[in-house]
Amino acid sequence: MSTFSVKAFGTDAAEADLKEINIERRAVTATDVEIEILFCGVCHSDLHTARNEWHNTIYPNVPGHEIVGRVTKVGENVNKFKVGDLAAVGCMVDSCRECESCKEGLEQYCEKGNIGTYNSPDAHLGVQTFGGYSQTIVVDESYTLRVPENLDLAATAPLLCAGITTYSPLRHWNVGPGKKVGIVGIGGLGHMGVKLAKAMGAHVVVITTSAAKVEDAKRLGADEIILSTDADQMRKNAGSLHFILDCVSASHDINAYLSLLKRDGSLTLVGAPENPLPVAPFSLIPARKSFSGSMIGGIKETQEMLDFCGEHNITSDIELINMQDINSAYERLLKGDVKYRFVIDMASLKN
Amino acid sequence: MSTFSVKAFGTDAAEADLKEINIERRAVTATDVEIEILFCGVCHSDLHTARNEWHNTIYPNVPGHEIVGRVTKVGENVNKFKVGDLAAVGCMVDSCRECESCKEGLEQYCEKGNIGTYNSPDAHLGVQTFGGYSQTIVVDESYTLRVPENLDLAATAPLLCAGITTYSPLRHWNVGPGKKVGIVGIGGLGHMGVKLAKAMGAHVVVITTSAAKVEDAKRLGADEIILSTDADQMRKNAGSLHFILDCVSASHDINAYLSLLKRDGSLTLVGAPENPLPVAPFSLIPARKSFSGSMIGGIKETQEMLDFCGEHNITSDIELINMQDINSAYERLLKGDVKYRFVIDMASLKN
Repeated sequence: MSTFSVKAFGTDAAEADLKEINIERRAVTATDVEIEILFCGVCHSDLHTARNEWHNTIYPNVPGHEIVGRVTKVGENVNKFKVGDLAAVGCMVDSCRECESCKEGLEQYCEKGNIGTYNSPDAHLGVQTFGGYSQTIVVDESYTLRVPENLDLAATAPLLCAGITTYSPLRHWNVGPGKKVGIVGIGGLGHMGVKLAKAMGAHVVVITTSAAKVEDAKRLGADEIILSTDADQMRKNAGSLHFILDCVSASHDINAYLSLLKRDGSLTLVGAPENPLPVAPFSLIPARKSFSGSMIGGIKETQEMLDFCGEHNITSDIELINMQDINSAYERLLKGDVKYRFVIDMASLKN
Repeated sequence: MSTFSVKAFGTDAAEADLKEINIERRAVTATDVEIEILFCGVCHSDLHTARNEWHNTIYPNVPGHEIVGRVTKVGENVNKFKVGDLAAVGCMVDSCRECESCKEGLEQYCEKGNIGTYNSPDAHLGVQTFGGYSQTIVVDESYTLRVPENLDLAATAPLLCAGITTYSPLRHWNVGPGKKVGIVGIGGLGHMGVKLAKAMGAHVVVITTSAAKVEDAKRLGADEIILSTDADQMRKNAGSLHFILDCVSASHDINAYLSLLKRDGSLTLVGAPENPLPVAPFSLIPARKSFSGSMIGGIKETQEMLDFCGEHNITSDIELINMQDINSAYERLLKGDVKYRFVIDMASLKN
């Protein structure tokens, strides 16, 4: 298979910094789209993978799965895109396309495992996939998204992971007018959750441990704030929420949040704490509550989310960085020192 | 308020055996039904309450909430029952009747707390309610159930708790033809879960730690058995079940069972382990699974369950005991030495 070399930023080992490397991309096949990457968001998964914290990293590793750019070439059978179009790629670049989940448009839950944008087996080249910290990416058009023209392009990049990860469960659990929705953990995911739930017409309640976040939560669209460190506020709001989107990726007391749910409510985890979370049976049984999880979203729903964001003028709050700043950005990410998402200006990779 | 004295079996203290005592019952009000109790099932909650294991027992305590008998008196406004009818009482004898849950017929989830058949505040007499280990009970007709005439009456008693506790989640999570349903924990609850899920048309998979239970599980109606102690069987059946009803009341590894669920599946707890159960985020997130709980069922649904059991000729497997044997029955219950429910022949209380 014909390939070409592109500049990227990646790492050869868990303990090594990311640095400039060269990777190979395939020449477009009949159904492929070649995209010049203009911006790439920085997701905590990038850091987990670069540092092998999930113990499955294949090196060299090039992270990045919040990708927006412009189409530079299309295969002969591509009909969704033409050269010059904006395009985006999220967390997946392929899946089996045959299982029940794929057929239902839920490729993220592909029974054979979806093909991640990085660190997954690439059937075309027989190596691992390489992500968006690079000049160019080549992706099958079925896994490529259209981008609304009216949005700030850099701030659109995080929609491809943080956006869809929060949009999908909000839709799945029927968040909308008349519903009181709690959002826990106001970071990269949570701040998108607040904006999206608000745009869906829900009454949005931010639950935070930090009084310092109150003002920003309101600015993002929260109708109400519960300080979870205030036992009195927690008690007063017991049984008040239809749904809770839990965006916390550190260990935390799930039972305290479950107490805020109404009967039949679900608390859905989209952050991924490393260790099991103890759940008391009596947090669930007496009001038929659920503790659940959700992972990104399917391609169709990701497009729906991008279109929804276009209509409602929703993007991520971002801090734009140069590719060369990625290692210090990771250190700041670990301290939660970003409002709310780093996005790499890929023009910097040309330097 | 006019009352009358009836013989009962109860206890004055957590560490004391149950013995014969006298309690007061109210004379029927306009909407009450007086029932001569013929049989009363023995639920593990009876033991927990008698021994104050949930730290909320008001003494004296008379347990028993799987009650069947015959109507001996009715209030002037009662129209669902007449003297001589069979009647049954389950875990509740009242609720606020005004909250959202009550209005939806989900009195078990009454926002003010339902009034339990024992150990709850009794608005009529200003004391705690007394349960079915007694000659007679007086209950508002709205919380009294009709009993199919074709069923063995003693074996019908456990339907009022074990039956509805398993029936309600099976219905709520849409168990029926085309669905593969796992039942974990083949005891008082679980053996009813197998019979009911089978009668609903599901493919029933019993998951057990004990090879000794295989034959009995088949007899109860299981289509398949998974030995959870066999890692190979667990692996082969990963992602195969639409729903799991978890009837285990001891600590157990929820994550192992969650692995058996298909995408969007729910594992629902109806047993009530004392300690929190650790749930790994990655047991839920990658296939949008839920861990949930369910508690008995509403009055309307309890009637539906009894009618369903009448149609399908379903009762509990029981061991009939005399009232005087209750203390040794409790000891056997603690060892799991009963197939599958003790039922007290209340005629023995006359002796």
